[in-house]
Amino acid sequence: MAKAKEAKTRVFSDVDYERRGKQATVLRVPQSRNDSGWAVVQIPITVINNGKGKTVLLTGGTHGDEYESQIALAELARELETGDVRGRVIIIPALHFPAAINGTRLSPIDNKDLNRCFPGRPEGSFADVLAHYVTSVLLPITDVNLDLHSGGRSMEFVPSTTAHVLDDPAKMAETTALALAFGAPYHVVIKEVDSGYTFMTTCERRGVTAISSELGGGNRVSIPGLQATRRGIANSLRHLGMLKGKSDGDDTKTRIVTVPDYGCYAFAPQPGLFEPYHALGARVRKGEAAGALHFIDDPHRQPVVVRYGHAGELWCTRGQGPVAAGDPVAVLVAPA
Amino acid sequence: MAKAKEAKTRVFSDVDYERRGKQATVLRVPQSRNDSGWAVVQIPITVINNGKGKTVLLTGGTHGDEYESQIALAELARELETGDVRGRVIIIPALHFPAAINGTRLSPIDNKDLNRCFPGRPEGSFADVLAHYVTSVLLPITDVNLDLHSGGRSMEFVPSTTAHVLDDPAKMAETTALALAFGAPYHVVIKEVDSGYTFMTTCERRGVTAISSELGGGNRVSIPGLQATRRGIANSLRHLGMLKGKSDGDDTKTRIVTVPDYGCYAFAPQPGLFEPYHALGARVRKGEAAGALHFIDDPHRQPVVVRYGHAGELWCTRGQGPVAAGDPVAVLVAPA
Amino acid sequence: MAKAKEAKTRVFSDVDYERRGKQATVLRVPQSRNDSGWAVVQIPITVINNGKGKTVLLTGGTHGDEYESQIALAELARELETGDVRGRVIIIPALHFPAAINGTRLSPIDNKDLNRCFPGRPEGSFADVLAHYVTSVLLPITDVNLDLHSGGRSMEFVPSTTAHVLDDPAKMAETTALALAFGAPYHVVIKEVDSGYTFMTTCERRGVTAISSELGGGNRVSIPGLQATRRGIANSLRHLGMLKGKSDGDDTKTRIVTVPDYGCYAFAPQPGLFEPYHALGARVRKGEAAGALHFIDDPHRQPVVVRYGHAGELWCTRGQGPVAAGDPVAVLVAPA
Amino acid sequence: MAKAKEAKTRVFSDVDYERRGKQATVLRVPQSRNDSGWAVVQIPITVINNGKGKTVLLTGGTHGDEYESQIALAELARELETGDVRGRVIIIPALHFPAAINGTRLSPIDNKDLNRCFPGRPEGSFADVLAHYVTSVLLPITDVNLDLHSGGRSMEFVPSTTAHVLDDPAKMAETTALALAFGAPYHVVIKEVDSGYTFMTTCERRGVTAISSELGGGNRVSIPGLQATRRGIANSLRHLGMLKGKSDGDDTKTRIVTVPDYGCYAFAPQPGLFEPYHALGARVRKGEAAGALHFIDDPHRQPVVVRYGHAGELWCTRGQGPVAAGDPVAVLVAPA
Amino acid sequence: MAKAKEAKTRVFSDVDYERRGKQATVLRVPQSRNDSGWAVVQIPITVINNGKGKTVLLTGGTHGDEYESQIALAELARELETGDVRGRVIIIPALHFPAAINGTRLSPIDNKDLNRCFPGRPEGSFADVLAHYVTSVLLPITDVNLDLHSGGRSMEFVPSTTAHVLDDPAKMAETTALALAFGAPYHVVIKEVDSGYTFMTTCERRGVTAISSELGGGNRVSIPGLQATRRGIANSLRHLGMLKGKSDGDDTKTRIVTVPDYGCYAFAPQPGLFEPYHALGARVRKGEAAGALHFIDDPHRQPVVVRYGHAGELWCTRGQGPVAAGDPVAVLVAPA
Amino acid sequence: MAKAKEAKTRVFSDVDYERRGKQATVLRVPQSRNDSGWAVVQIPITVINNGKGKTVLLTGGTHGDEYESQIALAELARELETGDVRGRVIIIPALHFPAAINGTRLSPIDNKDLNRCFPGRPEGSFADVLAHYVTSVLLPITDVNLDLHSGGRSMEFVPSTTAHVLDDPAKMAETTALALAFGAPYHVVIKEVDSGYTFMTTCERRGVTAISSELGGGNRVSIPGLQATRRGIANSLRHLGMLKGKSDGDDTKTRIVTVPDYGCYAFAPQPGLFEPYHALGARVRKGEAAGALHFIDDPHRQPVVVRYGHAGELWCTRGQGPVAAGDPVAVLVAPA
Repeated sequence: MAKAKEAKTRVFSDVDYERRGKQATVLRVPQSRNDSGWAVVQIPITVINNGKGKTVLLTGGTHGDEYESQIALAELARELETGDVRGRVIIIPALHFPAAINGTRLSPIDNKDLNRCFPGRPEGSFADVLAHYVTSVLLPITDVNLDLHSGGRSMEFVPSTTAHVLDDPAKMAETTALALAFGAPYHVVIKEVDSGYTFMTTCERRGVTAISSELGGGNRVSIPGLQATRRGIANSLRHLGMLKGKSDGDDTKTRIVTVPDYGCYAFAPQPGLFEPYHALGARVRKGEAAGALHFIDDPHRQPVVVRYGHAGELWCTRGQGPVAAGDPVAVLVAPA
Repeated sequence: MAKAKEAKTRVFSDVDYERRGKQATVLRVPQSRNDSGWAVVQIPITVINNGKGKTVLLTGGTHGDEYESQIALAELARELETGDVRGRVIIIPALHFPAAINGTRLSPIDNKDLNRCFPGRPEGSFADVLAHYVTSVLLPITDVNLDLHSGGRSMEFVPSTTAHVLDDPAKMAETTALALAFGAPYHVVIKEVDSGYTFMTTCERRGVTAISSELGGGNRVSIPGLQATRRGIANSLRHLGMLKGKSDGDDTKTRIVTVPDYGCYAFAPQPGLFEPYHALGARVRKGEAAGALHFIDDPHRQPVVVRYGHAGELWCTRGQGPVAAGDPVAVLVAPA
Repeated sequence: MAKAKEAKTRVFSDVDYERRGKQATVLRVPQSRNDSGWAVVQIPITVINNGKGKTVLLTGGTHGDEYESQIALAELARELETGDVRGRVIIIPALHFPAAINGTRLSPIDNKDLNRCFPGRPEGSFADVLAHYVTSVLLPITDVNLDLHSGGRSMEFVPSTTAHVLDDPAKMAETTALALAFGAPYHVVIKEVDSGYTFMTTCERRGVTAISSELGGGNRVSIPGLQATRRGIANSLRHLGMLKGKSDGDDTKTRIVTVPDYGCYAFAPQPGLFEPYHALGARVRKGEAAGALHFIDDPHRQPVVVRYGHAGELWCTRGQGPVAAGDPVAVLVAPA
Repeated sequence: MAKAKEAKTRVFSDVDYERRGKQATVLRVPQSRNDSGWAVVQIPITVINNGKGKTVLLTGGTHGDEYESQIALAELARELETGDVRGRVIIIPALHFPAAINGTRLSPIDNKDLNRCFPGRPEGSFADVLAHYVTSVLLPITDVNLDLHSGGRSMEFVPSTTAHVLDDPAKMAETTALALAFGAPYHVVIKEVDSGYTFMTTCERRGVTAISSELGGGNRVSIPGLQATRRGIANSLRHLGMLKGKSDGDDTKTRIVTVPDYGCYAFAPQPGLFEPYHALGARVRKGEAAGALHFIDDPHRQPVVVRYGHAGELWCTRGQGPVAAGDPVAVLVAPA
Repeated sequence: MAKAKEAKTRVFSDVDYERRGKQATVLRVPQSRNDSGWAVVQIPITVINNGKGKTVLLTGGTHGDEYESQIALAELARELETGDVRGRVIIIPALHFPAAINGTRLSPIDNKDLNRCFPGRPEGSFADVLAHYVTSVLLPITDVNLDLHSGGRSMEFVPSTTAHVLDDPAKMAETTALALAFGAPYHVVIKEVDSGYTFMTTCERRGVTAISSELGGGNRVSIPGLQATRRGIANSLRHLGMLKGKSDGDDTKTRIVTVPDYGCYAFAPQPGLFEPYHALGARVRKGEAAGALHFIDDPHRQPVVVRYGHAGELWCTRGQGPVAAGDPVAVLVAPA
Repeated sequence: MAKAKEAKTRVFSDVDYERRGKQATVLRVPQSRNDSGWAVVQIPITVINNGKGKTVLLTGGTHGDEYESQIALAELARELETGDVRGRVIIIPALHFPAAINGTRLSPIDNKDLNRCFPGRPEGSFADVLAHYVTSVLLPITDVNLDLHSGGRSMEFVPSTTAHVLDDPAKMAETTALALAFGAPYHVVIKEVDSGYTFMTTCERRGVTAISSELGGGNRVSIPGLQATRRGIANSLRHLGMLKGKSDGDDTKTRIVTVPDYGCYAFAPQPGLFEPYHALGARVRKGEAAGALHFIDDPHRQPVVVRYGHAGELWCTRGQGPVAAGDPVAVLVAPA
């Protein structure tokens, strides 16, 4: 069909997903520049194919300012050899590469959040073209996807895996088992809202088992976040039977929690400078003050107190002082 | 003299520094905009004058992304009443106001670091005009200045006061006593290098007693940093005899430390994504690895290890992952 | 259907259009920022639902620099109480909120003109997502829409209502009656050209009765424009039987006029500085000079005279001096 | 002296101010660009020298968005011939040429307001270099300067001439006589505040008789403003004995007024959307409401009323809706 | 159908393609600006219609920095008269007009490469709307398209015509004959890769005979490139029987060449400053050094040598020093 | 003196100009960034000190888009060893480093042309601080400076050395001898105009022997330009007795030429697209057409012919098509 033909990916590469062995190469996404007409953006990809078995797609840097996954996956790409694995591992440490190189959540090319561009469109802008490649070329050969996030510049999280509530109980069980194997302190199960255009939702619609994560952040490479990321990746691959050996001896008890309703989000009602009152992981009561909004253009105006709308544990805090109206300044989790 | 006449400040205000009582008003710095020809930037200022005694100038927000001082000084401006003080307290919670409103170190108006623009020039750009006002109008009536900094977006510090090594032993002793009264965990005494155009150097050249600080940071409102700021301001004012009451009972033992040589700065030799190996306050050895620079455009390139050039305690860490060549990724202090 | 499911709006809100009473809340449009990953744009909305009756949707600020509607509708939102109305009134004073806050016609987020983005797309950029919400959620429950415009920064108008020539005579009569009730000096009936993607055309295609307006402008809050806006809204609601009382006693005779052909638009043939020769409302002849284009880079070049291509009354003048090639510098109306 | 030598102008031109006759040429101000290393900015200048007599320097476009003077002076440059004048007339219709071409108050090259850059510096940025040329080359040969302003994008004025209160009564009388000859509705005599770096102050310090003006504005080419500009220039030249003929028969009675104190400026106390209550020229009472600030991010917040701090006539109104804190929204004059 | 109706072009014009004679007018593409609400972009178009015969569409400036075609086609538009032609010639010298006026490959309006936006979408941004007009209005009446390119800022080419390998041998023969008539030194036949959204591919899918070209470049108006462009256009029109006279006597032997595989592209493996070793047209061997990448941030790092992956002649060189990873620095052709 | 003390350089480095041997290190210029408070710009410098003898300062990249000198000097820095030289060689391959990294003439930090910022100011912006270091630290220890330029993005030159006409005949002879040793096709002796703030003028004022150059350009690394640069540097060092060996056997006869008057510059009288008529080095007559300005916004407007104002040889051509008013499109030289 003409239609299908037009939907062909615009991305090209010398990678051969079917070839045995380890390939370290790049995906080339065409992107004309004023000073380079036939330019491409090169996105490093490593494929380790040891024949029969599952295919796991490991992606980091879907948001460019989430560093923990980029470091841990690049390390894995360097160190993992063909003989170490069963099946096929596809590693893209910095998926939204222009954002990652820029150190920002969004890409400077089209100012888009890649994780709101799925399943993608080949006639769109850079992020759309890239998402379309993932959806149309990678997901059809993928069994399991770990798309690893952390808090980036604007948020900090208790290291966690995340997954959606799924209709299919078997799929749900499989996903949960994978998350528990990963071994982060929390596994957060969410009824996602604005999820129509996320990577995870696209995986689910195509039958790919998927977990994501929030592993640190706070505008830095989080030392505990990076540690949890390294462990989690290795544990997950072992759990899936793709790496030899068992999960590490660390017996972190992953707690399964959820974000029961909107009351768990404390939003800034107006712009200001947010002073948090609690540290990550704190147990808080419904109605308790979460912090204060200060107004530096008018020091004599009383700060506005923001309160928690639910009881729970402080899962996510605001990573920087100034907030816009509607920004979340705190997110709570509660037992699932 | 014509010269002196031309050097008159361009800043105007209805503030009257000699008037008794509490005034809450603004400094108006002329700044034409394309959409407002006769515009000014209004900088909130509070003056509390209870007659005879010293004059203390308290400034925050000299860098716009250093939030702790802005919150604590606005609070002080709201709460302090004329009857509470001896002498005169001048409070400017967000001195480099356009930077503070923008939440950035530099001002979006002229892209300048106010703390590299002293003593200022009335014919220069916004930051120069503002610095000139401070130097020519405020410093002549000021005895003591506390210009309170923290780490901002790009750095995080063990809460500290800072001061320069001074030639005059009496002045040095007076400064140290003030810092010890402030009561931060460290008091860092520095032989400053690029200090020709800083606020503190300008104070020293004009005989104003001055301390500064590094009270938190990490791209956020630091909870312990804000606590240290609040305590320190109150303690300093009591020490100076300007507030009734004694310093609080908190017996934090402030340790006097220094940055003995350039080996205490670990610089990034090239651009990369910096993974730190130690937490703030860690004791480290000379030659020990401080962290690793990762290269996300080439995951198969080995990370470059950055090492400490001195033994000491980790006073300052890099507040975000990506670094440029020459960026400090860690700064150590050692006993003075 | 999968398709329909994907076209679900991305906008969320706690508003309940079916609930009785007055709700003042916000629409939340997801919009990731580099410094706030889970950010939303909050658009104030007020719903006053007094049960049975028509639903009128009142929107202002579709272009951010058109202030008159924003002021008048915010006023209405503050003052109107449930007991005052029959049916349901939905008020969004500043629909394209990021543009309104920025004081510009287009949004700084995606540089789009909201009134060229209808019916919208949930996978598009901010303006597309917002238009899609209006089309898919609001229009199905709306009987009548008044989307109130004025001249903004670049144009100034004799206060007018506007409507399209419609194929259905009954709909046309209903629309005209509403406009006459509004009571502006002109009601301009247009065969619109580039209307495929406007709000009004989308209303018409979905059977919603719609008028729009041009009520002032000239890069300011027009005093007579604002007066006409306030009166017009009240008169329209009374005409629709939604407000008690009759239209005000003001017996402004609204004249029905039209823009018969392209000759009514005087376009700048090239860039220059436009000097208009006539004031708004002037009666002019075909071929008469409308003004002159001056060339400030070459003062010795003769100005180019621009002429009217039709006889009529000067409905719209250029709101600022410099024009680009193709900019309209004057628009005439003639009796319908 | 080496110093004086270094202060040589960087501007070059083939103009010869001493040559008899009419020259239409350009000043060339060096300005490297990334795409043109040896670029200059060409500023059109016309010199009409008919031998003995005074030298008048006529400048427009000192702010690029003030169009009336640019049009009227270009016209004069085209039409005036050597035989028409006594002495020497130097006409620069668009002095801050990059701003004028851009249609903005400030230049896009260095974002400076030329009228805050006098007397200029040859080692500064574009506006400084240009001001330095005016001061060091033009003012020494100039007897009288008319630097013609209007309200530009952000303000609108009752057409007026303006001058400073001068210490020398003879100079003051000469200046006033010139302004009365100009014949605008108001002549506004001001004790200027932020005037250290203006063109007019530099004229005064160098003994050049100088008046300025505010002739229209409102983000447009004002029809009455342009008319007043054309008349005023011709009248002034006749008054100075440089043009044959007497002043036109128009017996506009210029009223001499002043801005007695700061109460005549109504400043916006905070950001908002300003609705004015009065038209230009209105007589208002002290304490009367000047207008209201509306808050479009919170329609349910009551508008803030701004009041006049003095009685007088409304000389200047805000030319656009949104205001920043400290923006003047209305300026009054009162009898001198 | 509603669908088809919505896909109507948004571009309007007074051009009448069916009218006999010569029309010089503009296409008007609606494009709202903040300072001009009803603005359009005017694209000059010249139509010369002498009745029966083929229709040739001649387009230049599809990339704004490719100047040779813009100059030669404007010349043709000025000089060609109705009596000179058979059939109809449509000339658009600067198709992507905003890019051409800006002197850049991409448009400053939406940062898009027009030649990656075909067949276009009327609800897209500027380039999409323009491409949609070409596809939906012009291609249905066009028999032959010459869309003339050159190297622009970033590349320089041996002057060449280009065409795709086509499945239909008759069409292929017709295309080749046209290219040979054009008479450039090379005719390059390509199996195009990222061609799904190019102008040429859209022509082919709609049955329009199409050739393109690469006629100079190197960030300048190439003297030989412009000469080849002028000759080629005239020769092509004569070949098609649309101009009287035969092709010029110049017996340049056009050589038919191809780009056999990816080895013909030498890509920069990483960012650097590229020093080429050979001049355009040089014959090179497989494996020979093409040039060196220098690292100016580290002069002591050895340059990286880039090698040719194929034997051939140097068709295209990099037009400027700095390259990004993945930029082509040399492209070879080999006999077809 | 306090003044002198304040004029201390802000640049710091571990370089020791007096130490024997080869040092490869960096100059550190403080430059606060929003994302790095204590940032510096690192400028690579290599010092080779073999004791007694002259000191030669070799600088490239004073304009960032002039690549030939950057490549040749980095090569020299890599290859030259202490034993190879007499005296001291200081090599800075990319002096205006931020511009060089950006590939632009001006720096993206402050948009300044370093070669218009001498002698520099420590309180200025980046380029001023850097120029001040060169003037205050390097020039006092330098005997001879070669600051090597080429045409960059916007111009292309016949490879040449350049020098000013000097008052002192001995200095003039020494300079000419150095230039002849360099051995470029032309040596251009200029009475410089806008030279008050150039590097060369500052050298002359401080008694440092100085030549500069124009060695290629055309928005590329010019192959012949780079060759001339490499030869010239080596020849110059041998001529100065600092390198062993004699000048190479190449007997290029350097011709001494000059730019006798302004007629040698052909300026664009207005903006347009410039088509040159002659290649570099062509001999042209006074009054002959140099090229044509085309107007792509109006193809039916006749191009404007630009003519040479002097006879001579074409030394410099415009490196790109679009020109602004006042841009030089051709520069001629004539026998000295």
